[in-house]
Amino acid sequence: MKRIAIDMDGVIADSYAQFIEYHRRETGILKSREESIGISEAAAFPFIRKHILTPGFFRDIPVINGSQEIMKALNNKYELFIVSAATEFPQSLAEKQAWLNEYFPFLGWQQMVFCGWKTIIKADIMVDDHFKNLDHFEGQTFLYNQPHNQLADPGRHTRVFSWEEIGRYLL
Amino acid sequence: MKRIAIDMDGVIADSYAQFIEYHRRETGILKSREESIGISEAAAFPFIRKHILTPGFFRDIPVINGSQEIMKALNNKYELFIVSAATEFPQSLAEKQAWLNEYFPFLGWQQMVFCGWKTIIKADIMVDDHFKNLDHFEGQTFLYNQPHNQLADPGRHTRVFSWEEIGRYLL
Repeated sequence: MKRIAIDMDGVIADSYAQFIEYHRRETGILKSREESIGISEAAAFPFIRKHILTPGFFRDIPVINGSQEIMKALNNKYELFIVSAATEFPQSLAEKQAWLNEYFPFLGWQQMVFCGWKTIIKADIMVDDHFKNLDHFEGQTFLYNQPHNQLADPGRHTRVFSWEEIGRYLL
Repeated sequence: MKRIAIDMDGVIADSYAQFIEYHRRETGILKSREESIGISEAAAFPFIRKHILTPGFFRDIPVINGSQEIMKALNNKYELFIVSAATEFPQSLAEKQAWLNEYFPFLGWQQMVFCGWKTIIKADIMVDDHFKNLDHFEGQTFLYNQPHNQLADPGRHTRVFSWEEIGRYLL
């Protein structure tokens, strides 16, 4: 059974929706995803660090469309792991696990990894929205499209735009 | 640079000292480590699950002798990661990271992994006190001696009794 490592933020958790919402609360300005295309998350959302450190930020991020159904199916066919670079924000750890338990109840604690550098991950397939995680990974790689990576050449990684598309590749 | 994955409980954190202390508080009985030899932690400490779930349990576990000095030296010679099976007890996540920050301040968040199954870990060397973690690992393995594993045949794993001994092997 092949092992898949799936990222949280920007892959199953719609962090841009949350960035936009927290930016609106902070400034009164409603940004669009389009304004963020081709620039880093930090450049698009100047208060991002403060917001990410706010209790609750990671607990009520919306789920990315289609991820629940496709993940459930993948979970029957693969050894599925959630791998989230979370230790930079220790207060996010419990929130992230509670979020997973709520929206992905078919995953057990055995399948959750909260880490820093993902170079330590051994799997056959990785789905992530950041090149820094995919570039070091030796297996098959899917780049989940997000504004910050949208203009970059995906290189050897397969860019996907939706969970439906991931399902077509992997199910 | 070779990568080392180092367990927390029973390797750098003296969990038996904490089991004994919590058992004493619960029952008034002071157990010895010797009574626990050759039996599982759960068999030796019947209230273990309750105690492990108590806030604070993981925050003030004593540090295992010599681990700080040797880890600091290893950190200059290897790509060092702490890998702790912590997601079974979500309340432990933040406590474990705060504990690491206090006692191993030379480690960054990038080097911390809180996970469930350790089959997903890719490294060259693993130090752990549980066979379930070492047996699936393909690299060099060190079994840190603890009462629960003391009577078992270490098989292909190298049993070590102290951090000084780990230093002799790896520095």
